[in-house]
Amino acid sequence: MTAMITTEALQRRLDTRTKPQGSLGALEALALQLGAVLQTETPVLRAPSMFVFAADHGIAADGVSAYPQTVTAQMLENYRNEGTAINVLSNQHGLDLTVIDAGVIPVAGRNVRPPSWIGPGTRNFRFESAMSAEQCTRAIETGRTFATDAIARGSNALLLGEMGIGNTACAAMLLHRRTGWPLVDCVGRGTGLDDAALERKCQVLAEASARCPRVLSPFETLVEFGGFELAMLAGAMLEVARHRCIVVVDGFAVSVAALLATEMDARVRSHCVFSHCSAENGHRKLLEHLQAQPLLDLRLRLGEGSGAALAWPIIDSAARLMTQMASFESAGVADRKRDD
Amino acid sequence: MTAMITTEALQRRLDTRTKPQGSLGALEALALQLGAVLQTETPVLRAPSMFVFAADHGIAADGVSAYPQTVTAQMLENYRNEGTAINVLSNQHGLDLTVIDAGVIPVAGRNVRPPSWIGPGTRNFRFESAMSAEQCTRAIETGRTFATDAIARGSNALLLGEMGIGNTACAAMLLHRRTGWPLVDCVGRGTGLDDAALERKCQVLAEASARCPRVLSPFETLVEFGGFELAMLAGAMLEVARHRCIVVVDGFAVSVAALLATEMDARVRSHCVFSHCSAENGHRKLLEHLQAQPLLDLRLRLGEGSGAALAWPIIDSAARLMTQMASFESAGVADRKRDD
Repeated sequence: MTAMITTEALQRRLDTRTKPQGSLGALEALALQLGAVLQTETPVLRAPSMFVFAADHGIAADGVSAYPQTVTAQMLENYRNEGTAINVLSNQHGLDLTVIDAGVIPVAGRNVRPPSWIGPGTRNFRFESAMSAEQCTRAIETGRTFATDAIARGSNALLLGEMGIGNTACAAMLLHRRTGWPLVDCVGRGTGLDDAALERKCQVLAEASARCPRVLSPFETLVEFGGFELAMLAGAMLEVARHRCIVVVDGFAVSVAALLATEMDARVRSHCVFSHCSAENGHRKLLEHLQAQPLLDLRLRLGEGSGAALAWPIIDSAARLMTQMASFESAGVADRKRDD
Repeated sequence: MTAMITTEALQRRLDTRTKPQGSLGALEALALQLGAVLQTETPVLRAPSMFVFAADHGIAADGVSAYPQTVTAQMLENYRNEGTAINVLSNQHGLDLTVIDAGVIPVAGRNVRPPSWIGPGTRNFRFESAMSAEQCTRAIETGRTFATDAIARGSNALLLGEMGIGNTACAAMLLHRRTGWPLVDCVGRGTGLDDAALERKCQVLAEASARCPRVLSPFETLVEFGGFELAMLAGAMLEVARHRCIVVVDGFAVSVAALLATEMDARVRSHCVFSHCSAENGHRKLLEHLQAQPLLDLRLRLGEGSGAALAWPIIDSAARLMTQMASFESAGVADRKRDD
């Protein structure tokens, strides 16, 4: 076991680079976090891996999305054909993109299901538990395995995204149940609901929550109200927390998964870099609750890891600035005036 | 003369990509701007060129910076040795970096001055005009020439930064004189002044402003209170406005140059992408005045083009998403429900 690198040593390295102290703003805290997680004064992010977990949701039958449920499967095909935003962004930044079918309703005539597939979407949690405990365990373990494999291949940065028609409803429900915040603070417009549809979404979730009034553990909450992709996201984060590896959290749904994973293992939080604050209602409050400082605030509401990918170069910059900048001494540059 | 591309055509292209309408948030307005400036529905940013204009300021003698004036020349050397933040960021993003000596006080024994060099820093504008009209014209023309050359080499994106001990004082002064805002709203801590030094900076600038109470044109304001690097920045922007080319504006000082350039030629504004809102007092108000939506808000206060470089991948993303994403039709993905 090597000695721990102290925060003081990391701060000293940062403050001796040729820039006014603190002048890199939010990138300075990020550089310190990267140094602490990777346990080095000269962090280098390697082989960044983007995982987009996709699944269907039984609750979609209740009209909680502006898009039909078939879009989940259609988007899986669109990812394969490199036509989506996350394909474009992953190509731009050299991110190794894997889209995982965590439980998408298969298109007729397509019967090949990958080992990651848990089931044809969750059950409608308005009437019954979204999944079985066994399915939830399997989803978490599957998420762990993807993380383990990426880390074994040399990655020390996992970027996590999701896709699934109905999953902001699912995430809002999980947030409501884990925090006790009123549903109206947790529920948002998702891909673009109008006012009437937003109100219906709230009503559907209130009814669902009333089905199961008892206090639940994080795991039980996932079983009752979760989604396969959200359980896999939590699993991936639980695994990352055991390694010198960071996780870049995308938007609202992934942040909810981060909340659950942090409740399951408090070590998760320090590994999380929160990429952005989305336009989805509830995200800002959740980020504050997690004491997270998101890097971007661009009113994104696309999901599929797009915010994580957009923030990636900035995260990489923080590591590079810490590692590659000259010091005042080595560059022969005068530091602040002595009489200050 | 080719026909103009309409905003409607650009919006249509954006809205037929496989994403919920508006879900890319601030990137959508940016994509439209790129399409309009480059006059194409499929914008591609080419050969991005980063120019950092450096100069010294006579006003530095009045103690308006936390760093000694010799740091300007020392940093020029640090840029050559690839040790600075902007070197690291330019290398990361493949930006063609040019650091221009617009008028740095030469280090003893170093007598080679580049053609861009206007003089050994400006005069102290507390007592006299910062530069002559001839120097100001030459600085603007020099900025134009760097832009012209980059565009001739195939660049359609110029990223602009600055460096110069004392230049936030100079920029604050220019902002005060162009807007009439109270000095206290324009003056900030620069590289890190404490409260007493900040107050002194304000007093120095108030005294300087009183020296020349008459109403000035933008050009005259640069002559009286400007800096060589700020005049060159304005010149580069004036040139960009004549081409299908964007300019990525860095922090406070470059934004002040953008204000002056826009006053000189209103076409400048539409070519400007504002990369970030810095921690420097006055920047947020100036951005609002320019109706600019900065991409980043990371409390940066380093200058030297660092914010522009950090925002660069996001700007490139906006172009790539517009150009490379599949349409709903081509991808066979269902658009919003018809009954919405």
